[in-house]
Amino acid sequence: MAHEKYENLIQKLHQCMEACSHCFDACLQEEDVQMMTSCIRLDRECADICGYLEQAIARNSPFTAELAGVCATICEACGEECQKHDHEHCRECAKACFECAEACRQIA
Amino acid sequence: MAHEKYENLIQKLHQCMEACSHCFDACLQEEDVQMMTSCIRLDRECADICGYLEQAIARNSPFTAELAGVCATICEACGEECQKHDHEHCRECAKACFECAEACRQIA
Amino acid sequence: MAHEKYENLIQKLHQCMEACSHCFDACLQEEDVQMMTSCIRLDRECADICGYLEQAIARNSPFTAELAGVCATICEACGEECQKHDHEHCRECAKACFECAEACRQIA
Amino acid sequence: MAHEKYENLIQKLHQCMEACSHCFDACLQEEDVQMMTSCIRLDRECADICGYLEQAIARNSPFTAELAGVCATICEACGEECQKHDHEHCRECAKACFECAEACRQIA
Repeated sequence: MAHEKYENLIQKLHQCMEACSHCFDACLQEEDVQMMTSCIRLDRECADICGYLEQAIARNSPFTAELAGVCATICEACGEECQKHDHEHCRECAKACFECAEACRQIA
Repeated sequence: MAHEKYENLIQKLHQCMEACSHCFDACLQEEDVQMMTSCIRLDRECADICGYLEQAIARNSPFTAELAGVCATICEACGEECQKHDHEHCRECAKACFECAEACRQIA
Repeated sequence: MAHEKYENLIQKLHQCMEACSHCFDACLQEEDVQMMTSCIRLDRECADICGYLEQAIARNSPFTAELAGVCATICEACGEECQKHDHEHCRECAKACFECAEACRQIA
Repeated sequence: MAHEKYENLIQKLHQCMEACSHCFDACLQEEDVQMMTSCIRLDRECADICGYLEQAIARNSPFTAELAGVCATICEACGEECQKHDHEHCRECAKACFECAEACRQIA
């Protein structure tokens, strides 16, 4: 079944969605929020597409490969922004983004 | 952190989203698809709201309780429909729906 | 048909989704972004639920009333936050939120 | 502003989301539902991505072009399936899908 074949990717997407969502929330509470605006924006883009792709894979969407290609691009952009910052939530988010991007590229 | 406090609920939502998405896909491939139309419709409603609430909790949404109340209602409706059918995907889906509904009710 | 009966609500939801999404984008570009963090967060919550409800109504979801109740609550919270600010995007967003909340309450 | 530059595309996406959502609902009520399973599946894929892209454009997402490319592919697939059927909801859906695909291609 599609959702079992892609179990590793679904897990990476889920971890990335959670890490980006937490980073979004934490960035909005940082004192230096002015420095975090790109991060806030990209966290949201990335959480949204990861959540979307998770569900698309689980329902055996015929468009998994195309969506995974876009998702990889967004994860990489978010990871690159997050790794510019020293906040722990950003570092964890960057790690989750790069791992998810790699898993997406394998099926894109 | 919000997303840790709710880790059990996020897990139940994720399992329910996956079970409903798989049931949606499998119902569309059943020979007796005419019998499965309510199931198909409710699987989609339930997968959508579970995916939505997962992400809302992960970003520390101020509206988690209200959304969890609606999600519980939808999970219960989907579980009740699914348990009318003998397909394994329906039985697994019903189980995931009822567990998720219970977890939602605890925070609603 | 459901989506015609609710055409006014769908229009209000769509306008509110657009206004909140634009306000989210514009707030992230304001110099006083520190002042706008609640607005950014609520803009996102509100755009997401309005987009969700639009689509739920269009597919004749059995849960339109329950979802509209939550949507009204979120629209009101977003409108109250936005009306604290003088930026034009906030004032337009507040207006769209209150109109949408009112339309939601009529079917909730 | 991004959402004004793309006003035509947002309108096409919105019309396509509504047409696909209505077609999804109507297909599930057809007597020959067995014939409509591909249509049901693709209606959902298409409504979801159109709703997603609408909101991404409205918030000035940096990934509009990539998402529009995938959206065009999904709209075309849904339009091709829908035009195989004589139901009025399918014919209207096919028309909305092809118009939306064309608008997406222009910015992809």
